[in-house]
Amino acid sequence: MRHDHLITSKQLSRADIERVLDYAAEIDADPSAVADRHADKLLGLLFFEPSTRTKMSFETAMKRLGGDVVDMGSVESSSVKKGETLADTVRVIEGYTDALVLRHPKQGAPAMASEFVDVPLLNAGDGAGHHPTQTMLDLYTIRENAGLDDLTIGIMGDLKYGRTVHSLAYALSNFDARQHFISPESLQLPREVVYDLHQQEGAQVREHEAIDEVLPSLDVLYVTRIQRERFPDENEYQQVAGEYQIDVDTLEAASDDLTVMHPLPRVDEIAPEVDETDHAAYFEQAHNGVPVRMALLDLLLREGGDGDE
Amino acid sequence: MRHDHLITSKQLSRADIERVLDYAAEIDADPSAVADRHADKLLGLLFFEPSTRTKMSFETAMKRLGGDVVDMGSVESSSVKKGETLADTVRVIEGYTDALVLRHPKQGAPAMASEFVDVPLLNAGDGAGHHPTQTMLDLYTIRENAGLDDLTIGIMGDLKYGRTVHSLAYALSNFDARQHFISPESLQLPREVVYDLHQQEGAQVREHEAIDEVLPSLDVLYVTRIQRERFPDENEYQQVAGEYQIDVDTLEAASDDLTVMHPLPRVDEIAPEVDETDHAAYFEQAHNGVPVRMALLDLLLREGGDGDE
Amino acid sequence: MRHDHLITSKQLSRADIERVLDYAAEIDADPSAVADRHADKLLGLLFFEPSTRTKMSFETAMKRLGGDVVDMGSVESSSVKKGETLADTVRVIEGYTDALVLRHPKQGAPAMASEFVDVPLLNAGDGAGHHPTQTMLDLYTIRENAGLDDLTIGIMGDLKYGRTVHSLAYALSNFDARQHFISPESLQLPREVVYDLHQQEGAQVREHEAIDEVLPSLDVLYVTRIQRERFPDENEYQQVAGEYQIDVDTLEAASDDLTVMHPLPRVDEIAPEVDETDHAAYFEQAHNGVPVRMALLDLLLREGGDGDE
Repeated sequence: MRHDHLITSKQLSRADIERVLDYAAEIDADPSAVADRHADKLLGLLFFEPSTRTKMSFETAMKRLGGDVVDMGSVESSSVKKGETLADTVRVIEGYTDALVLRHPKQGAPAMASEFVDVPLLNAGDGAGHHPTQTMLDLYTIRENAGLDDLTIGIMGDLKYGRTVHSLAYALSNFDARQHFISPESLQLPREVVYDLHQQEGAQVREHEAIDEVLPSLDVLYVTRIQRERFPDENEYQQVAGEYQIDVDTLEAASDDLTVMHPLPRVDEIAPEVDETDHAAYFEQAHNGVPVRMALLDLLLREGGDGDE
Repeated sequence: MRHDHLITSKQLSRADIERVLDYAAEIDADPSAVADRHADKLLGLLFFEPSTRTKMSFETAMKRLGGDVVDMGSVESSSVKKGETLADTVRVIEGYTDALVLRHPKQGAPAMASEFVDVPLLNAGDGAGHHPTQTMLDLYTIRENAGLDDLTIGIMGDLKYGRTVHSLAYALSNFDARQHFISPESLQLPREVVYDLHQQEGAQVREHEAIDEVLPSLDVLYVTRIQRERFPDENEYQQVAGEYQIDVDTLEAASDDLTVMHPLPRVDEIAPEVDETDHAAYFEQAHNGVPVRMALLDLLLREGGDGDE
Repeated sequence: MRHDHLITSKQLSRADIERVLDYAAEIDADPSAVADRHADKLLGLLFFEPSTRTKMSFETAMKRLGGDVVDMGSVESSSVKKGETLADTVRVIEGYTDALVLRHPKQGAPAMASEFVDVPLLNAGDGAGHHPTQTMLDLYTIRENAGLDDLTIGIMGDLKYGRTVHSLAYALSNFDARQHFISPESLQLPREVVYDLHQQEGAQVREHEAIDEVLPSLDVLYVTRIQRERFPDENEYQQVAGEYQIDVDTLEAASDDLTVMHPLPRVDEIAPEVDETDHAAYFEQAHNGVPVRMALLDLLLREGGDGDE
């Protein structure tokens, strides 16, 4: 990457993405080669929203590179509740660390924050905005299981609010991928995202309300969680959610090679019985967060650094 | 140990226990010999209930072995509150780490979780169930102070709800120990635990409502906290709790060699004046958590691991 | 230092302070020289009150010395809420670690706690009492920017409740410094602090309600936050707070060499436009927490330790 910060997957070209994925694969094959790479480096973790897997996998990645983390902790236990601005918080913490990871409920917060700091800053999710490291591990998992060329992918569930889905869709438009978006009408992709995707040269985007018509053609099915709180009425939620659940019966109509993914946590979208099938790739997907984030951290710490390594 | 996971002290034979205690003593005598033993290893901490000393001593133990930890954090700040199952959580986190430590309010949760993971899993307390690493440090402390052979021990306080007490009682039944259980009638050992203990060959178990009759014969007195919330009536609590408190006066009837233990935290069960006497072993007991957990972690990481060390 | 614990800046002589500042400057110039100094050491973090920068900078300092930390976590997730005394908590945790850092809402808590432990204990702020490591980084920043000899300093804002201000004032009375205290009448320095300062040989202390009369003479202006919750009436707060805010217009009356400091977090006391001027030293000040705490930790770990290094 020729970037000091990682804010959105939109900033990454196909060549950038492939470079990261290649490097992640190299690390995955031999993690010991980088086990002491950043032995004296500290990564600042600033999570203004709860997170388990993103935070833990960043921490794991940094420690697998020989480095360590310094964690701001929860907002409740920090100075944030004394009224400090985000610009002040990041300017203080950059003085302690060699890079920053920031998750924030407000869309655009990481982009704003990155203008105040000299160390590399990685966006770990901003509201309904972007989540570029999740996108990279999704792409890595797709490439390992189905390949990124001549790909037919279905993306299903809550497509309206999910930053994970938007980030992935933008990134996939760099590749030769047929994207099918499957959701109830009330949770369709935002119109501006569809518009953006159609602007891309060669983009192949279609929307569906039911999975049946596209399932047999899919190489990858990417399922997301439909959140109860999006629905004013519990009955409506139950009915809608029920139509977008995957189980072994559903998958009988799919290709034997279908890869099922999910950013996790899941609730009822994928039945536990699917875990035992060869389709299930969602735990592998979560685990891929480590080599992918190791690759991203290493590239940013080496290039975004002060050149003294 | 010939086990991949450590779930309950019932799974440990006398030989298993002695092997761990011997190794803990070896580590305690020369911690520097293992200070880099697990330099590239990560331990996942999953505490679904508050904990100070168990969590901190596991973290200390792992770091004293040269390794590091990755902490899920509190349930409030994690994906658990989004409705993720424990089986999913442990399967994600095992991908980041080389072993897992799990505390959970539901009895049986660690046993269930261990069936979903390939890395070693250690139970750090499950509801009213088991707490095997606490038991091992209790046994270690008893052995150092009074010996495990020909032992007369009194276990006093809340015997009904305390997993620490149940775990210890089962483990002691492997040894030549006379166990006296002292509690108000309402907080007696559960009948099934008494039944189990009597099934053990050579078990020597007696129950008492007052400490006076047994105190002079004891080598060790193990005190536990009587929790206010177990009593519907505050007056009844005050009266009962008062009868099971230890101070310097109480101890005049005891042997000079009596060792007083407590799993901590204490409230009023042991008067601060006892701290200054030679009887007090409860801080030493807490500190023993480090070499004992170092021994357990090292044994599980080496034997439960992927054999590449 | 000839001390095992660091409880208050009052315990430090001018020679003590200069030794620490000199050593911090040495570390700041070449941190790599101490990067593995305490590779097998653990620092226990006991924060009974929220903190971002103090806690993170202690953690950073320890890790920059090659060591690691073990964190008690928030009070809500610890045994403290089970009713454990502070004396018990520190006696347990000292068994895990090589030194302790303690922040506590009750004034005097660190002094009390230090009597129960053998490892060095550092006060990280106790109620309205002391905050000696903050004072040391303040002195370091003053020395780097304006020098500690022949100093004219203005200390402005909430002088009544701020432990930071009291600690700094006591420490400055060791030097040839003219101290001007600027605050609304209701937030003046406590009378006993003024009394104490006047007892110091050569102390030069004056109090003001407005900054105008002293601003032109100042080498350093140390601004603190006026807390809304100190005022029963919102209008009164707004009016008072407004009079003690610094912006570019205010600073036109100041010397070009004026250094503006703030312990952070700030709310409205210093306008963001000041950040871009050469006066602003508050982020540098926060960053100085790392070398200063590295120096303090190293001195205490080497001298307060068991002599086996």
